[in-house]
Amino acid sequence: MLDFRKHINVSDDFFVVRNLTGSILEGVGVAYLVPALLVWAYPDEIKYVPYFALPGMASILFGAWLSRHSSKIEDVNLRQAMVAAAFTWLLASLVSVVPFMKIAHMPLLDSYFECMSAWTGTGLTMMSNLQSYPKMLLFWRAWMQWLGGIGIVLVALTVLIRPGVAAARLYRAEARSERILPNLVNTAKVIFEIYLVLTLVGVYLYYINGMGLFDALTHSMTGLGTGGMSTHDESIGFFHSPAINAVTIFLMIMGAVNFTVHYRVFKNRSLKPFFADIQVRYMFFFLIPAVSLIAYSLVQVGDSLANALQGAVFHAVSAISCTGFQISDLSKYPEVGKFLLAVLMVIGGGAGSTAGGIKLIRITLMYESLKWTIESAILPKGAVIKRKVGNYVFSEEDIQEVMSFTMTYVAFLLAGVLYTMLRVHANLADALFEVASAQGNVGLSVGITSPAMPADLKFVYILLMWIGRLEIFSTLVFIISVFFLLPGGLRR
Amino acid sequence: MLDFRKHINVSDDFFVVRNLTGSILEGVGVAYLVPALLVWAYPDEIKYVPYFALPGMASILFGAWLSRHSSKIEDVNLRQAMVAAAFTWLLASLVSVVPFMKIAHMPLLDSYFECMSAWTGTGLTMMSNLQSYPKMLLFWRAWMQWLGGIGIVLVALTVLIRPGVAAARLYRAEARSERILPNLVNTAKVIFEIYLVLTLVGVYLYYINGMGLFDALTHSMTGLGTGGMSTHDESIGFFHSPAINAVTIFLMIMGAVNFTVHYRVFKNRSLKPFFADIQVRYMFFFLIPAVSLIAYSLVQVGDSLANALQGAVFHAVSAISCTGFQISDLSKYPEVGKFLLAVLMVIGGGAGSTAGGIKLIRITLMYESLKWTIESAILPKGAVIKRKVGNYVFSEEDIQEVMSFTMTYVAFLLAGVLYTMLRVHANLADALFEVASAQGNVGLSVGITSPAMPADLKFVYILLMWIGRLEIFSTLVFIISVFFLLPGGLRR
Ligand SMILES: [K+]
Ligand SMILES: [K+]
Repeated sequence: MLDFRKHINVSDDFFVVRNLTGSILEGVGVAYLVPALLVWAYPDEIKYVPYFALPGMASILFGAWLSRHSSKIEDVNLRQAMVAAAFTWLLASLVSVVPFMKIAHMPLLDSYFECMSAWTGTGLTMMSNLQSYPKMLLFWRAWMQWLGGIGIVLVALTVLIRPGVAAARLYRAEARSERILPNLVNTAKVIFEIYLVLTLVGVYLYYINGMGLFDALTHSMTGLGTGGMSTHDESIGFFHSPAINAVTIFLMIMGAVNFTVHYRVFKNRSLKPFFADIQVRYMFFFLIPAVSLIAYSLVQVGDSLANALQGAVFHAVSAISCTGFQISDLSKYPEVGKFLLAVLMVIGGGAGSTAGGIKLIRITLMYESLKWTIESAILPKGAVIKRKVGNYVFSEEDIQEVMSFTMTYVAFLLAGVLYTMLRVHANLADALFEVASAQGNVGLSVGITSPAMPADLKFVYILLMWIGRLEIFSTLVFIISVFFLLPGGLRR
Repeated sequence: MLDFRKHINVSDDFFVVRNLTGSILEGVGVAYLVPALLVWAYPDEIKYVPYFALPGMASILFGAWLSRHSSKIEDVNLRQAMVAAAFTWLLASLVSVVPFMKIAHMPLLDSYFECMSAWTGTGLTMMSNLQSYPKMLLFWRAWMQWLGGIGIVLVALTVLIRPGVAAARLYRAEARSERILPNLVNTAKVIFEIYLVLTLVGVYLYYINGMGLFDALTHSMTGLGTGGMSTHDESIGFFHSPAINAVTIFLMIMGAVNFTVHYRVFKNRSLKPFFADIQVRYMFFFLIPAVSLIAYSLVQVGDSLANALQGAVFHAVSAISCTGFQISDLSKYPEVGKFLLAVLMVIGGGAGSTAGGIKLIRITLMYESLKWTIESAILPKGAVIKRKVGNYVFSEEDIQEVMSFTMTYVAFLLAGVLYTMLRVHANLADALFEVASAQGNVGLSVGITSPAMPADLKFVYILLMWIGRLEIFSTLVFIISVFFLLPGGLRR
């Protein structure tokens, strides 16, 4: 195995990890207190307040104690930042299980699954008969998804899109030219404001189209956060409203667009930056043929054209944006429809958005890269090929990063599919669909995910949601740090 | 679209193409004469001789007339070499259709499919009830597969593994250190001798294990050439002989090993170079878990352990070596078994062998590349990472070539799967299996390929076999040259 230890000082890490743990606990603790505020609107739910207030307070106090020296952290290196991001999602999910265990009486594994699914914006669920649960618990899921969504946007723009990485070059360049992101605190603030405004727009649009206020709030939060958790078992299909479907499609697309694009749209009061964005263009480039073919496959099995088109558009957008809202039972879709949705889920939304998957910028770069390869084979030696996408020039290193990420993503996907097929005798289309959904943080399901699934498969899906959300490398670095560095560090 | 024309002189190309066409016609013409010689062993087949002798003579004469100036070709550039390789397989297949049309009374499209399948070493077939056909026709298929096998090895070591390409670095280095390949003519000669000797070994082993001489000859040729065409509908399963299965496994593995490795084994009279070869090692690295899981999945559906293991070993080797021999009906395999075999077919055999697929060296490099990426994320800046596989150091450019090839391969695979599913309502597992088989030049089938399949799907599979055999880029360069350069050239 690789010999990392001689390069790395593990005692530095312990200090960073302790402070980080403290900050996560404080953050989740504060988050815990918000659902309890719903008691003003729903006074009969006062009996559930302790299940939020107590873990919230405990988490804040313990967190503050752990991170009492946090002012001393000055310089966090890339490896530490990656490990921290991976650890944040693991720990936040663990801290958040209390209401599921105490109110819904779910086992620890199922509760952890639910929390990981919520924090990663996946939306696969261990719960059914959702309307029977208190509003406070349903809000808790939506709230985690909303926070997880803004969280990953900030992590993506700071840690995941790291220096020397293709997506970084693209978005740093844009950010700098706009002078919106001179430092991290400002970045966070501007993006958070945009996120909040868009959420309120969603609540308003849902509300005027006939949703109740609670449903409007939760679905706007999980729609824009591309989380996809609903307050109804039938998801958006519960409302049987084309207008609500349309609002949802709008929110899902907004959530899957890089947030620096939103900034420019807001600032310039023009839709131009939206349609000029290369990731937005490619999203539609993939959606149009996929929607046509899915609709065609639905008509082939006897659906009406209008129904087929509505289902195809909604579910294709839900898949590529990695939201996971449904308006009908996807387990009844023909295999080719499942396959096409799975491909969209693997592609995913824009880098720098709340969406998951491989991300559109990477797929775009690979597609362009193929053209460059053919050009270089055809043109005589010495002919100069410009590796440009839009206004940005990419190096071979950028392209390599993209491809190596994609390879790793596909390798995990295949391993997950194989495991699912061997474990629950699912056929290939269903296994691919469900695994693409978990790893891409989508949440669409053909029914493999349920409380009845084997415990080891739940564990595998938790792992897939986690690595998918952190774009794999962070989690691999985390795992290697824990298993190879920690033991050595402790022995010193 | 790209503007190639200002860089390329098309009139040069016409000259090269005409001479090349002549050479191909001469070569296929000579090949045509060989099956006719079988008349000595089977005198009652004399009535079929004209169907080989006449197209053979015509082809030789027309070819000689076309290439009468061939001595003038001095310098062929990379693009021309790639186009030539792609064109060779297209034209050779077209010239070879006569016996199928005249003896088997097959339509042109089916005959062309059969010839493309034979020349590319795929083995998918439009024919059934094979034993009813004359020996001469059955030999013609095997003979094309054997020639196609040695042909692709030579093309791979000269054109496909082009300068600056990872696999080239590896095998040029080996070749040079062995001093076996100072020039192209010597390369061809040494490799041809090894190929011939191994074929004769195969004939002998089949014969002493109870095969008739004709079957021993044809199966040794299509086994070592990893073509997989049989003289029986049940393929190797016809013989019901564990010994013959074992000989076949031996031949398939030999055919899937880089031929410079064979050279070293022969020269050093030692098996060390075989087991030291990185591609051989990775072949077993993939085979062992795949065989275990396929056998497990067969036992799960009620097979005996002995039967399951025998089927798993045989078909896994047949898949990864891209041979396509079967010993049982794969359409009855559980989906997870089909999926695993499809993955092996996509991986494929060794570069510089007769096998197809992505090739083991590329998969190896991608796997190692992932490790390097993680190392570079974990180690502090400035730490030097050695990009070594075995004794060879790879550049980022090498890795990029490998990944961009793999991406393109997978893109074509997905397009083929989608087309198959939409066109014949196959489920995902079957469509993936059949397309992986066609594009990987394997020839295993779950039954989608048959004379009854739609004409457009036959055309798609012909295309997939062709691009798979030429490692895609050659064929893309060919297509671009024909559609974008030729019209401009003609207009001048
Ligand atoms: K989701
Ligand atoms: K084959």
